[in-house]
Amino acid sequence: MSLDTPLGPGAEFDMIREILARLGARATGIGDDAAIADVPRGESLVASIDSVVERRHFLRDWLTPRELGYRAAAAALSDLAAMASRPIGVLVALTIPDTWRDDVLSMADGIGDAVDVAHTRVLGGNLSAGDELSITTTVLGSAFAPLRRSGATAGDRVYVTGRLGGPGDVLRRLRAGEAAGPHRERFVHPVPRLDEARWLAANGASACIDISDGLLADLRHLAVASGVEIALDPERIPCAAGVDRDAAQHSGEEYEIVVTTPDRFDGFEFERRFGLPLTEIGAARAGSPGVTVGGHGVATSVGHDHFSA
Amino acid sequence: MSLDTPLGPGAEFDMIREILARLGARATGIGDDAAIADVPRGESLVASIDSVVERRHFLRDWLTPRELGYRAAAAALSDLAAMASRPIGVLVALTIPDTWRDDVLSMADGIGDAVDVAHTRVLGGNLSAGDELSITTTVLGSAFAPLRRSGATAGDRVYVTGRLGGPGDVLRRLRAGEAAGPHRERFVHPVPRLDEARWLAANGASACIDISDGLLADLRHLAVASGVEIALDPERIPCAAGVDRDAAQHSGEEYEIVVTTPDRFDGFEFERRFGLPLTEIGAARAGSPGVTVGGHGVATSVGHDHFSA
Repeated sequence: MSLDTPLGPGAEFDMIREILARLGARATGIGDDAAIADVPRGESLVASIDSVVERRHFLRDWLTPRELGYRAAAAALSDLAAMASRPIGVLVALTIPDTWRDDVLSMADGIGDAVDVAHTRVLGGNLSAGDELSITTTVLGSAFAPLRRSGATAGDRVYVTGRLGGPGDVLRRLRAGEAAGPHRERFVHPVPRLDEARWLAANGASACIDISDGLLADLRHLAVASGVEIALDPERIPCAAGVDRDAAQHSGEEYEIVVTTPDRFDGFEFERRFGLPLTEIGAARAGSPGVTVGGHGVATSVGHDHFSA
Repeated sequence: MSLDTPLGPGAEFDMIREILARLGARATGIGDDAAIADVPRGESLVASIDSVVERRHFLRDWLTPRELGYRAAAAALSDLAAMASRPIGVLVALTIPDTWRDDVLSMADGIGDAVDVAHTRVLGGNLSAGDELSITTTVLGSAFAPLRRSGATAGDRVYVTGRLGGPGDVLRRLRAGEAAGPHRERFVHPVPRLDEARWLAANGASACIDISDGLLADLRHLAVASGVEIALDPERIPCAAGVDRDAAQHSGEEYEIVVTTPDRFDGFEFERRFGLPLTEIGAARAGSPGVTVGGHGVATSVGHDHFSA
């Protein structure tokens, strides 16, 4: 949208105008009842919705408003990476308590940072007052052949991008009331692995998922959806500095991706292109759908759950 | 998604499974990181996001949970009607306080009712705990030539669907602590004018907007976006039974649509097809962008504003 979008008078529209001024060219086409975009010919539309709610997903002093906006949008965009999709744009619904009103433009800056990183834009939004801050992001993308969780077959190798455990380490420290520690930057600025996922899809990936709930939990989702047993070799898990393998397996909000392939990936070429390790961590085989670690079954209660007591 | 979608364990996934069981065939394809859908060849993607928040947009005793779910989804779908678009599907993010947990399945029933009315489906969702109930709905649709607010030109006639004032009458009564009155059904079950808008677009409509903020406020959005003055004839406004013209002009949350056309619409044919009146209420002309009523200018502060004091 342009800055001269004709919106009506009123405090709500004033705030929308300010947000749009802040986003500049990163928000386009806004001002109608709905946004209009094109899906490349022959490609499927890929769409996902994700919310972050204050006190449920984060505490206010963990992140600056700009980091919060970035993180909400980047986490949602990670779902497009998991489908090996190219972003078309995002729609963002903000619920803003009075105590956050002065931070809205900084949050918009952060959302702008995230759409910049993903080479996409804000297509639309909604602004409501409320007692509780929440950011709900819908991501829209496209792909000729979106990667699914269900595509792994027995014999496939299992790979993961990056090094795991940083965000989990930060969350553990923050929840204990400590400083965020050495992995703070990795926690506040996760990078949706969009280009990486498309490269992996083009190079033979059979299934993919992003790590939001933790490696074990998300591997289990993939294993169950694919109807395979995934044997994870814990010795191979790439760990962030100072994080042990057990912590790395359970660390959530990583936004790295796990992929399977019937062949091999060229990890050297991947690292050369993306500056990121790609590590083979296990294999899929016929068996009871689920995950084994070093030959042992894994209890099913892994990952985090917003509704557990 | 099918009922046997392999989701992991945990209370959150249990609730999602229950919601999906309730939605049945009205929710399909869920279970991956993102939903996959097709946009008809040659058509543009049309997308909008909308939130309702308890105590900001409604009070709990105004609506049953099923009506609330219906109304949230139907109001969002109305934005597709305003663009003369055909729905592809909706994504719904629910934030659920403990005090609402027992009502979630009834809300899902209502969302299902709305997607049935719109001949569409739930493509994806997100469930979070929170202190404040909110429902954020993203609607996705498609059209060859989406109608915009900005397409009216001087000389166009202005039409409105339905009869106005019912929802405003209900809201006035509810806010005064009274019973909802005779127009309750119209308030709790607004019908997105999807088929009507596509017929109007096919029959020469030049611009369109849905009435969410009130006829005057939304006409003004359209007039400003189109750069025309719209002269509204107050004598012609079609009013709901027992509602006066002034109240009908300001009644929000109508989800009727206003359309302009350089020609005429066949109101008789429209009413025969849709069982709904289509009324000519004014005309666009060259002049200061905005609305005049019976020859008089309209103050700019019209419609409601979630952020006004």
